[in-house]
Amino acid sequence: MNYFVHPSGLCESETVGEGTRIWAFAHVLPGARIGTDCNICDHVFIENDVILGDRVTVKCGVQLWDGLRVGDDVFIGPNATFTNDRFPRSKQYPEAFSVTRIEHHASIGANATILPGLTIGQYAMVGAGSVVTHSVPPYAIVVGNPGRIVGYATNHAAVTPEPHAPHMGSSTVTGVRGVQLREFPIFEDMRGALTVGNFAGEVPFAPNRYFMVFAVPSKDVRGEHAHKICEQFLICVRGRVRVVADDGKARQEFLLDGPQRGLYLPAMTWASQYAYSADAVLLVFASHAYDADDYVRDYSAFLALVSEQDKLR
Amino acid sequence: MNYFVHPSGLCESETVGEGTRIWAFAHVLPGARIGTDCNICDHVFIENDVILGDRVTVKCGVQLWDGLRVGDDVFIGPNATFTNDRFPRSKQYPEAFSVTRIEHHASIGANATILPGLTIGQYAMVGAGSVVTHSVPPYAIVVGNPGRIVGYATNHAAVTPEPHAPHMGSSTVTGVRGVQLREFPIFEDMRGALTVGNFAGEVPFAPNRYFMVFAVPSKDVRGEHAHKICEQFLICVRGRVRVVADDGKARQEFLLDGPQRGLYLPAMTWASQYAYSADAVLLVFASHAYDADDYVRDYSAFLALVSEQDKLR
Amino acid sequence: MNYFVHPSGLCESETVGEGTRIWAFAHVLPGARIGTDCNICDHVFIENDVILGDRVTVKCGVQLWDGLRVGDDVFIGPNATFTNDRFPRSKQYPEAFSVTRIEHHASIGANATILPGLTIGQYAMVGAGSVVTHSVPPYAIVVGNPGRIVGYATNHAAVTPEPHAPHMGSSTVTGVRGVQLREFPIFEDMRGALTVGNFAGEVPFAPNRYFMVFAVPSKDVRGEHAHKICEQFLICVRGRVRVVADDGKARQEFLLDGPQRGLYLPAMTWASQYAYSADAVLLVFASHAYDADDYVRDYSAFLALVSEQDKLR
Amino acid sequence: MNYFVHPSGLCESETVGEGTRIWAFAHVLPGARIGTDCNICDHVFIENDVILGDRVTVKCGVQLWDGLRVGDDVFIGPNATFTNDRFPRSKQYPEAFSVTRIEHHASIGANATILPGLTIGQYAMVGAGSVVTHSVPPYAIVVGNPGRIVGYATNHAAVTPEPHAPHMGSSTVTGVRGVQLREFPIFEDMRGALTVGNFAGEVPFAPNRYFMVFAVPSKDVRGEHAHKICEQFLICVRGRVRVVADDGKARQEFLLDGPQRGLYLPAMTWASQYAYSADAVLLVFASHAYDADDYVRDYSAFLALVSEQDKLR
Amino acid sequence: MNYFVHPSGLCESETVGEGTRIWAFAHVLPGARIGTDCNICDHVFIENDVILGDRVTVKCGVQLWDGLRVGDDVFIGPNATFTNDRFPRSKQYPEAFSVTRIEHHASIGANATILPGLTIGQYAMVGAGSVVTHSVPPYAIVVGNPGRIVGYATNHAAVTPEPHAPHMGSSTVTGVRGVQLREFPIFEDMRGALTVGNFAGEVPFAPNRYFMVFAVPSKDVRGEHAHKICEQFLICVRGRVRVVADDGKARQEFLLDGPQRGLYLPAMTWASQYAYSADAVLLVFASHAYDADDYVRDYSAFLALVSEQDKLR
Amino acid sequence: MNYFVHPSGLCESETVGEGTRIWAFAHVLPGARIGTDCNICDHVFIENDVILGDRVTVKCGVQLWDGLRVGDDVFIGPNATFTNDRFPRSKQYPEAFSVTRIEHHASIGANATILPGLTIGQYAMVGAGSVVTHSVPPYAIVVGNPGRIVGYATNHAAVTPEPHAPHMGSSTVTGVRGVQLREFPIFEDMRGALTVGNFAGEVPFAPNRYFMVFAVPSKDVRGEHAHKICEQFLICVRGRVRVVADDGKARQEFLLDGPQRGLYLPAMTWASQYAYSADAVLLVFASHAYDADDYVRDYSAFLALVSEQDKLR
Repeated sequence: MNYFVHPSGLCESETVGEGTRIWAFAHVLPGARIGTDCNICDHVFIENDVILGDRVTVKCGVQLWDGLRVGDDVFIGPNATFTNDRFPRSKQYPEAFSVTRIEHHASIGANATILPGLTIGQYAMVGAGSVVTHSVPPYAIVVGNPGRIVGYATNHAAVTPEPHAPHMGSSTVTGVRGVQLREFPIFEDMRGALTVGNFAGEVPFAPNRYFMVFAVPSKDVRGEHAHKICEQFLICVRGRVRVVADDGKARQEFLLDGPQRGLYLPAMTWASQYAYSADAVLLVFASHAYDADDYVRDYSAFLALVSEQDKLR
Repeated sequence: MNYFVHPSGLCESETVGEGTRIWAFAHVLPGARIGTDCNICDHVFIENDVILGDRVTVKCGVQLWDGLRVGDDVFIGPNATFTNDRFPRSKQYPEAFSVTRIEHHASIGANATILPGLTIGQYAMVGAGSVVTHSVPPYAIVVGNPGRIVGYATNHAAVTPEPHAPHMGSSTVTGVRGVQLREFPIFEDMRGALTVGNFAGEVPFAPNRYFMVFAVPSKDVRGEHAHKICEQFLICVRGRVRVVADDGKARQEFLLDGPQRGLYLPAMTWASQYAYSADAVLLVFASHAYDADDYVRDYSAFLALVSEQDKLR
Repeated sequence: MNYFVHPSGLCESETVGEGTRIWAFAHVLPGARIGTDCNICDHVFIENDVILGDRVTVKCGVQLWDGLRVGDDVFIGPNATFTNDRFPRSKQYPEAFSVTRIEHHASIGANATILPGLTIGQYAMVGAGSVVTHSVPPYAIVVGNPGRIVGYATNHAAVTPEPHAPHMGSSTVTGVRGVQLREFPIFEDMRGALTVGNFAGEVPFAPNRYFMVFAVPSKDVRGEHAHKICEQFLICVRGRVRVVADDGKARQEFLLDGPQRGLYLPAMTWASQYAYSADAVLLVFASHAYDADDYVRDYSAFLALVSEQDKLR
Repeated sequence: MNYFVHPSGLCESETVGEGTRIWAFAHVLPGARIGTDCNICDHVFIENDVILGDRVTVKCGVQLWDGLRVGDDVFIGPNATFTNDRFPRSKQYPEAFSVTRIEHHASIGANATILPGLTIGQYAMVGAGSVVTHSVPPYAIVVGNPGRIVGYATNHAAVTPEPHAPHMGSSTVTGVRGVQLREFPIFEDMRGALTVGNFAGEVPFAPNRYFMVFAVPSKDVRGEHAHKICEQFLICVRGRVRVVADDGKARQEFLLDGPQRGLYLPAMTWASQYAYSADAVLLVFASHAYDADDYVRDYSAFLALVSEQDKLR
Repeated sequence: MNYFVHPSGLCESETVGEGTRIWAFAHVLPGARIGTDCNICDHVFIENDVILGDRVTVKCGVQLWDGLRVGDDVFIGPNATFTNDRFPRSKQYPEAFSVTRIEHHASIGANATILPGLTIGQYAMVGAGSVVTHSVPPYAIVVGNPGRIVGYATNHAAVTPEPHAPHMGSSTVTGVRGVQLREFPIFEDMRGALTVGNFAGEVPFAPNRYFMVFAVPSKDVRGEHAHKICEQFLICVRGRVRVVADDGKARQEFLLDGPQRGLYLPAMTWASQYAYSADAVLLVFASHAYDADDYVRDYSAFLALVSEQDKLR
Repeated sequence: MNYFVHPSGLCESETVGEGTRIWAFAHVLPGARIGTDCNICDHVFIENDVILGDRVTVKCGVQLWDGLRVGDDVFIGPNATFTNDRFPRSKQYPEAFSVTRIEHHASIGANATILPGLTIGQYAMVGAGSVVTHSVPPYAIVVGNPGRIVGYATNHAAVTPEPHAPHMGSSTVTGVRGVQLREFPIFEDMRGALTVGNFAGEVPFAPNRYFMVFAVPSKDVRGEHAHKICEQFLICVRGRVRVVADDGKARQEFLLDGPQRGLYLPAMTWASQYAYSADAVLLVFASHAYDADDYVRDYSAFLALVSEQDKLR
């Protein structure tokens, strides 16, 4: 094969793709499988049970342990550190090492630490110096120790209500197919405030059930799934939460922060909720009864379904 | 007429009902109209433009000023003090004195102060020493300076959830016709808590609309009306609120304090909500679209309607 | 008898003590019993089932209703208002009117309102304009609406720890027989703070049991009793509370506000605790097992016992 | 003299002004001095050491005790209650009774309670049912138990900044002679916010000194004085405070609630500050060094000085 | 000696134990002393004044500086970083480098940073990516930046009270020799709540003294010692704290979070308290007077004493 | 040239200063320029567009990327990690890599992470394990993730007011040329507290303007500049802030935490403000009108000016 190994580098594997370069003091064990056009920098160490896709960059000082699966076009920053044993003790080995998956186009920041057994979703970005303790959803941006989602990579500007806008009934056009942001009027007088929505009118469907999500630790993301036929209408009646809606092509973020603001999600919308305030209560109306088969929980499966439905149109 | 005036009392009015007694050092001006079987105690002073119903008790040291209208069976405690000018200055008189109405069976506590222009509703009770600055709804109990509603006179024991009861799905029978208190299960895991209700099943009707009431100052009462045909289902998703339900005969109070607890109010139920916590958000499902004609806002009219419907049964 | 009635006053009772004066527009019903040297001012009204001791002052505009028992040397300010029915309705009478007792040397402020069925203890003082909703212990000073105890009349200066004094082990001599205020050292380092007390040494007895008082609404007073043989040691481990100790002759107040400060109460000490902060937890060590017979809950009985024991010394 | 006493009234004084009326069951002792055109209603009691001005109204059930001084045009509502002994005990009298002064045009609300030894300033208004525990400044409006200043009677509308107005540099014309309200711009960026004022330009004088007022209990009023030659510039750098400015003819209230808002008070402006928030810090620039002789602390003296200066113009 | 050095590794020391392997691009300086069966991975650097025990694992990218002392069976994760100078400046050296001790069986997580001069106790576990700023006690689990104790490695499940269990008197059997968890009843009424314990009955011994621990920063651990003869009874009267009890063989954790819950620790129990809430007050009853000789503060010495006593049984 | 490369090291550059040592497994690319007496430890990697000053220490496991500029006498701890692309994606390169500057005598802690495009000021110190997300001013000490300034390296002890000292007027001599710390008396009474300063007396100049700084996020530092001729007087009227004053030779830190404490900064004083409390309001009096040319914002320029002025003395 046509790949390059620096004279001071050690490459014991022969499964290395064309155009890949392996630099000085790097060491690749015999079982590793490495794709084409990769860049393996100085002082990198790669064990046997490791698979790298194409066009992967591994910067200096990184070790890739048994159990690591790296997709195409992944970037791994310098001194980023992986693990494969949650409670390591010397000379005591788990039955099987945890598998860490880094999906295509993800980026691992310099000197980040990734705990064992996690998946870093496609296009996700882990900030430099972060310590990642939970799996990272597709497109999510994670920073800090412990790592928290601080945003999502989207392709439409976020919709954040103006703080002191008059609360008029209105509907905002969004960049995501079918998604509507409804603003209901607030009626205030000395007795307090009131807001009203009519089902199958302002709320675009007759609900089959409601549920409420509350007492969510702010570190957590809820949702991260789509429904095949169920429509939903989300209102944050107390506190605030951010919702990212995704139709498979366009992604947009919405801040829900009051009982007068509802977000309509049609079927086949991938949605993530994050940055819950401590007091947040999220009320959701759903158009259909609970049906486990209606959920699409894997983003790749969601993309496949979207693609399939688009062909039928 | 057959009424009694103590030798040391002064009664200049001749419109005094049979059986009424007027005691020592009391003084009734000529224009006052007083019903039957009243008791006007020592040191009372009654001006001209004053009307008293039957069986009214006025204890010692009370003055009834021009503009006071007192219904049947009212009790006015000793030294209770009325007013008819909000910003009195000596020798400056308003164009017309404010009218104060005290509806039948109400009770004004000893040494209470009633600001001008208010209505004290039927069966309401003003605590001793209170300073009443707003009108008082029927049956309400008011105490303090300024006076706040602290309860309602009911004829069934209040339903207050046990603080540490397991959150099981259940339904409580109430003393008010058709009213149900539902308890839904709570599902909790590391991501937070969840509660679900199915419409037309656990919630006894399919909703036509929802509304939310929030930011209610704790001093205020909302509701105080009935619906002719609309049914409602109330959930306090955050904080707490007290609800008094009344079918025209029986009255009962309910504490709503969590997203898993719903109160069903059938049509023709008079309801008052009070003692909102600062953070309360009350979610209401309603069976019908908004219709101003569906509201009964006057308690006497409500009683008349109840009585009419009972005859048809 | 040798007493005075103003020509414009009405006194129908003949049980009136020597030297008592009854003034203009006052009205005393036949059954009332009034002691010697009383002063009954203008516009006072006294019903039948009322007993007044000697040297009582009743200022203008006061009514004394059936059921009122007034001790010697009591002062009742102008327009002070009493009640004898907690939920008065016109023409509906309770089986028996509530009895209100005002013990000797108490003082009721001008325009105060006293709810029915209460006892105002000896030497207690009710502030002008107060609304008294609970019985008032001996010596207590009550103001506000609703009335709250804001202090006690004592004959020794209160002991309030200096806010920034070094926490040294020490023992303060008090003005009350046998009572000791112990200050234990606090040991602080980067890990936190520590305080220690030895039983039967720094704590003057070996405890038989402990109990803790907490979640006390600040309006409430606990204690107000003495023990015949049981000794106690009080520490306010969180928050703050005021304790008044009384040996029957001397009274003194102590502020307990930290885990390093203990108050020893020997047997036969009358103690009151009040002004609990919202977070207060009061820890009490007791020298004896619980014995209902060990409690002296009536202050007069306590004084009698003290007097008896003094004779034996 | 030409005054009226009702046949059931008792007037033992002969110092009663022309046109004054004294009604049934009222009782005036011989030493009282009463002005012209007064109205003394039923059941009023007036002791000897009492002086009333002209055109005073005393409603039913009021007692005026020794030591009361009432100015012209005062209104005293029904059952309002005065006191002259702070710690009354029966048969124990203070060396001298406290003197209570009610200045001209003041109004005492129905059933209010006035503690001993206070002054109620000219045009002040005490709300019905209030319990007044401190002296009340001229024009102040007091309500509650204990009574708190909730406003001032002014003859120009209060200036309250719009909550979300952009902070532009500007100057507001006021209704009080020479007083200016300056709004400075705020410059905000990610590092925080900044506001600037130039002396002898935006601030209308070169300061000789500054002072800061803070930690003011919210119940208290500071200021209540004028300066003869010193000019001042007030900024509430933290929290909020209300300032009433008075040129002797016009009065206006200003809310100061941010570091960008300054109030210029020329010499000979009477100013009161009240409703301090707990965290308020009021910064004052003064044009002159401190001089005790520059202060005018008595409102009547201030009015006299204004009048004198006006003549010189 | 029989040890292995990879052809691309550099080992200048000859004090290397049998079975130890030193891999590619690793570099060991001449003075280092390394035990048997160690594993020194790629890109490791070991200075001269370094001592390693037996069966130590040093993963890739780690440097061991002068002053490091590593016990047997220690695991050091990849890119874990040590320090030996608290305020390093180029070319300025401290008189002596700080000594870092890692006791046997400890585990240092991947990419963790250890500040100079600390001791990591036996079996302790430092989480991946942590920054350790204080010494770590035996068995403690530390994570975060700065590192905080979040748990202890135990061999029995933790005992955490059910949040809404009725407060009944009860006693829980534990996995640690002699340790008991007692649950006392709570008596609540309108005046507050009360809980009582009888000594030598519900509390298993007569106390000689009490002490209270409070104001503990949540980052800190208290305790970490055993008593030779003294028994203790722990109650967290306010807030919450976690206690780990250890008899030398079994270890178990207990959550104390209310005044009705007591933990009995017999003599010869090693105890650690951590995760104090900000408001925690821990009350401890002790069976004996304070005696410095009664404390065992070194865990190894404790294990030796346990073993000795076991032989005598 | 006279420099050393270990036999297992790779140095492709020829621009290496005298006395510099390059150790095993280190790799220097041809374009790098390295000063004299540097120490480049094992496993270091240095790219082409990198410049190092003299006496620089680079500990093991560090990579220096294109765009890094390192001053004289810098220390870079082991495994410290740099970056030059804020949003790295594999095979996507920014138009130009960010430049990171580390000024002379700075110290980068072990395993710290430095985000791209920042400047680390002279003598600054980055703590071990920190993640640095903003530029660091000269002398600042930064720790944590994200990194925050926790202090400044100074050569005089900080001045922190004693918490309970009586507030007497006083002036503290400081270690920085011309800087004065003034303590004004506080006058407290029941109405609140007052503090006063006289211009051109206690405040050492007549102000031309004032400004106020507030709403500063606590992570931020303001100031970091000197004035050529303008004098300033700083008072923290609410909350607290730390100020570091520097005359070019001496540096000292002052805690300002009350309206009675003012810090005088003469012209040509470099000042930094940090650790603002959330509620801090900093009032500054300035002797001159705003003039952009009066600011010296670069610390090196400031040092040059100081040196120039010193020569003129």
